[in-house]
Amino acid sequence: MSELTIWTLDWVPEGPRGFVRDLRLRWACEEAGLAYAVRTIPFDGRETNHLAQQPFGQVPFLEDGGLEMFESGAGLLHLARKSDRLMPRDPAGEAATVQWTIAALNSIEMVTVPWWFLEISGAKNDGLTGWMGTRLGHMERVLGEQEWLAAGRFTVADLLMADVLRVAKVRSFGDRPATEAYVARVTDRPAFKKARADQLAHFEAADRKRAGPRSS
Amino acid sequence: MSELTIWTLDWVPEGPRGFVRDLRLRWACEEAGLAYAVRTIPFDGRETNHLAQQPFGQVPFLEDGGLEMFESGAGLLHLARKSDRLMPRDPAGEAATVQWTIAALNSIEMVTVPWWFLEISGAKNDGLTGWMGTRLGHMERVLGEQEWLAAGRFTVADLLMADVLRVAKVRSFGDRPATEAYVARVTDRPAFKKARADQLAHFEAADRKRAGPRSS
Repeated sequence: MSELTIWTLDWVPEGPRGFVRDLRLRWACEEAGLAYAVRTIPFDGRETNHLAQQPFGQVPFLEDGGLEMFESGAGLLHLARKSDRLMPRDPAGEAATVQWTIAALNSIEMVTVPWWFLEISGAKNDGLTGWMGTRLGHMERVLGEQEWLAAGRFTVADLLMADVLRVAKVRSFGDRPATEAYVARVTDRPAFKKARADQLAHFEAADRKRAGPRSS
Repeated sequence: MSELTIWTLDWVPEGPRGFVRDLRLRWACEEAGLAYAVRTIPFDGRETNHLAQQPFGQVPFLEDGGLEMFESGAGLLHLARKSDRLMPRDPAGEAATVQWTIAALNSIEMVTVPWWFLEISGAKNDGLTGWMGTRLGHMERVLGEQEWLAAGRFTVADLLMADVLRVAKVRSFGDRPATEAYVARVTDRPAFKKARADQLAHFEAADRKRAGPRSS
């Protein structure tokens, strides 16, 4: 068995397929050329059946030998320390990579996920819409000025930011050509495509095992 | 001049005093016994006057010799690598500290800040209220089982989580005795009290310099 293990759910409905966050860890391992296994916990009872591993009842979590950690962002920073393909080794490059990784989690995703949460629940969310427009506007300016977020090269910060932005409905907030080109460029990487295809195959295999899809 | 410099605003209105996030960096430096200077950018024009240092127009950002980084979470992880008072040096202790630091930013603050944002704007936010109740419930369970988040001791993850939770109106979500005791315990640390007092004094001095408070 591989030393690295990515834990995810054994099955999810169609909607989240291609977006479950084990994809981030798969993608990082693919970029870094790190071997990994994928193991699962049951979808049924997921709210409470793995709280010892993930105290919010979510996935993924990452196992590395005797270490175990939840939060995809923490897993990404852990993997980044294993490979300079994900993060440069000089202090300035590392600081910039960590900074933009945290920005993806705490300045962009902090706005996009609650916005999406209210959007799908049909709630009126004008307050968050204005906030999201402002933040996406800042990102558009940054991405119009530079190809990569940190150190003039692809890093784990781009992996995470592109994953955050591809879920956000950027188009709903007007014309954002630099952001759209950035997301297209980063998600065109073979490592992303393989990670996404592997996740889709994982859940499709689960469908077959259950003899056809269930309702969620 | 100190090698470490924490950049914040030269003035803010009464409301955010004691909560501006330079407090997190001050607090970490106080815990670690790291000397630091505080420098400022003008409150007026803050949306655009320091985008080269902080692309979202916010504070704080941290300077360490030639390095510069924004995002208080990134600054905290940077400081944590300088002192084992903030993060243990063994791989398991480090992984647990990083994991809970990211959890504070991406699982708790991702819910509490948008909830608060809608709350102060007077918007109806039932969707986020339910989500926040669930997340605070998970934290209550965790904090009922352990005194510290990582490695059985105070770490930068507690500093950040306590700062996130002290802003969230935990009481509005019912009886959360373990969470309240945790926040009280962590914010009773001398380093927090000094950081908070120093921030309040910083902005009070700005009032005097401007010959009395202005409106925001």
